[in-house]
Amino acid sequence: MTNPAEPAGVRPAVRSVPAYPFTPIDAPIKLDQNESAYDFPADLKVVATGRMLARPWNRYPDLHADTLKERVAAFEGWDPAGVVLTPGSNVLIKLLTELAGIGQTVLTVSPTFSVYTLEARLLDARLVQVPLNPDFSLPVGALKAALRENRPGVLYVTQPHAPTGFVDAEAAVREVVEAAEGWVVVLDEAYHQFSGTDYRNLVRAGENRLSLRTFSKAWGLAGVRLGYALGSIALATQLQKLVPAFNVGTLAQAALEVALENPGYVAERAAEVVRERERVIAALADHPVWTVHPSRANFYLIRTPDAEAAYRHLLSRGIVVRRQDRLPMLEGCLRVAVGTPAENDALIAAAREFR
Amino acid sequence: MTNPAEPAGVRPAVRSVPAYPFTPIDAPIKLDQNESAYDFPADLKVVATGRMLARPWNRYPDLHADTLKERVAAFEGWDPAGVVLTPGSNVLIKLLTELAGIGQTVLTVSPTFSVYTLEARLLDARLVQVPLNPDFSLPVGALKAALRENRPGVLYVTQPHAPTGFVDAEAAVREVVEAAEGWVVVLDEAYHQFSGTDYRNLVRAGENRLSLRTFSKAWGLAGVRLGYALGSIALATQLQKLVPAFNVGTLAQAALEVALENPGYVAERAAEVVRERERVIAALADHPVWTVHPSRANFYLIRTPDAEAAYRHLLSRGIVVRRQDRLPMLEGCLRVAVGTPAENDALIAAAREFR
Repeated sequence: MTNPAEPAGVRPAVRSVPAYPFTPIDAPIKLDQNESAYDFPADLKVVATGRMLARPWNRYPDLHADTLKERVAAFEGWDPAGVVLTPGSNVLIKLLTELAGIGQTVLTVSPTFSVYTLEARLLDARLVQVPLNPDFSLPVGALKAALRENRPGVLYVTQPHAPTGFVDAEAAVREVVEAAEGWVVVLDEAYHQFSGTDYRNLVRAGENRLSLRTFSKAWGLAGVRLGYALGSIALATQLQKLVPAFNVGTLAQAALEVALENPGYVAERAAEVVRERERVIAALADHPVWTVHPSRANFYLIRTPDAEAAYRHLLSRGIVVRRQDRLPMLEGCLRVAVGTPAENDALIAAAREFR
Repeated sequence: MTNPAEPAGVRPAVRSVPAYPFTPIDAPIKLDQNESAYDFPADLKVVATGRMLARPWNRYPDLHADTLKERVAAFEGWDPAGVVLTPGSNVLIKLLTELAGIGQTVLTVSPTFSVYTLEARLLDARLVQVPLNPDFSLPVGALKAALRENRPGVLYVTQPHAPTGFVDAEAAVREVVEAAEGWVVVLDEAYHQFSGTDYRNLVRAGENRLSLRTFSKAWGLAGVRLGYALGSIALATQLQKLVPAFNVGTLAQAALEVALENPGYVAERAAEVVRERERVIAALADHPVWTVHPSRANFYLIRTPDAEAAYRHLLSRGIVVRRQDRLPMLEGCLRVAVGTPAENDALIAAAREFR
């Protein structure tokens, strides 16, 4: 397995993986990263920065952001000892791969969130992907077979699923999760505020289970960086060992404490996202050549005959979306975030112009 | 290699490693974390928070904090493509272990910075530690032998060394680094502003070399979290693949951009640290039972007959320091950060009371 490429010493798995495939595009209407269309409320930004000014920046923050952890735990009805915080839930996916993936197995579906597979490849986990059913539902039987046939490691179940926006029947999710004895089971719930689904009870029922959640979507705080895991104390204690000390900084802690003291805006905005998502999907239902997949997240997939042409057309109208057409089962697909009503109007108008 | 302990699926290496050994102690004089004694200048905090207010918090930050990367590169006289930023240099140590440690070797001295060995153990690198010489200098011959006898991986060379504060002759450092063909060589320069040493030229001379630097010490920004690596474009490109996307948040980027636009305070404060360090060491030279090791960092080791008693005595005087007496070669040692002149006076007075 030696590789002559420089620099020497670098593991072959790292050399063989391409860099994270994202090129930022400037456009007036930004629907390519599944962000909230609205900034954190301006009055809360003022409160948060005031709190930052009052705190020392020269001192290390809490080792594990304990005050913030307690706030998150109280918000979620969870034991603080079962909460793990990191600057973004993509960091947690790396740490979960370190926890139970290296030299073991990472099991997920296909198509899936790219970070699961990227970290598995970088860290020499055995990556097993099972194709989704044609309607994007979980392939329950095939996943159960893969759980039996592979040495345990990490299983990812994403609800709502990304990048499809599909939500499975709870019974299907439960059947897969309960079949994963001996595995670390990750219920990734990054988009749960838009679907109304909530797998905390299923996670509570097994010591090997975690829910991943984030402040980057419904909370409108992608720039501040905070993701968290809710799990058993036993599992959180092991995962916490892998979190670098002082990982969540003083500035982010102040901002997130203020958010958790003022969470009222989140449900309001999530409800608007749901209304707008359904409005856009209905408005595009009679499109002559594009079809929109149903979604329970803050984004939806548009299937087009030619993703490149559709992408360029939208960009020419000032709208940037994300191409997903190179993923299995997603030929011709663009992924579009739900924007403000005006942004969604612009998307509908641009779509209708395209024939 | 199965282990019956729950939760199942967790790698044995993680289960066998204890959690990061740090318990915060509240005391009026905090000399236990090698922080700057001074906060980031108040006027700059105001500028930084103003910039934060003007930026969107709902949008993901730059994928790799490109603007900040360019500022760091300009400050250091480095190609931006050779710079890697993460929230704290401890994150870089994890990523370097992922880059070239997993299934390979991590080589360092003993005693050494705990994060090198912690990440090696967590990630199943083969950890090789060579004892320092009795005067704390690098064991050049033994390190060269270890480089020959082990499969390559990561070599750490720390200048000034932590936790001793020792600075080696440049020729010794060069001899070790040049012997490390085929290894990823990390010159950890977290404390270089206090020693006046600078290994950028040595790093530039080899594609396999990196310098690690931080905003947590001389810059007085431990709470904001930023560490960085300077290396060849080839090596930085591989390391960057392992950095989670959007890892440095919008708030930290704003603060650090302001710091880099106003770096004048750093050299002034470092000069004060050096003056104060030498003043404290001179003042304690005639202590009846404690001896102070010379240091070129912003901390120093006090060797005592009984570290527990000395630690408790200082704490009773409102001063918290860090015990290092359980480390090899450091029996009886406390590690003390250089504080403000008044804090250092208090340390000197408390030391003189102890007999």
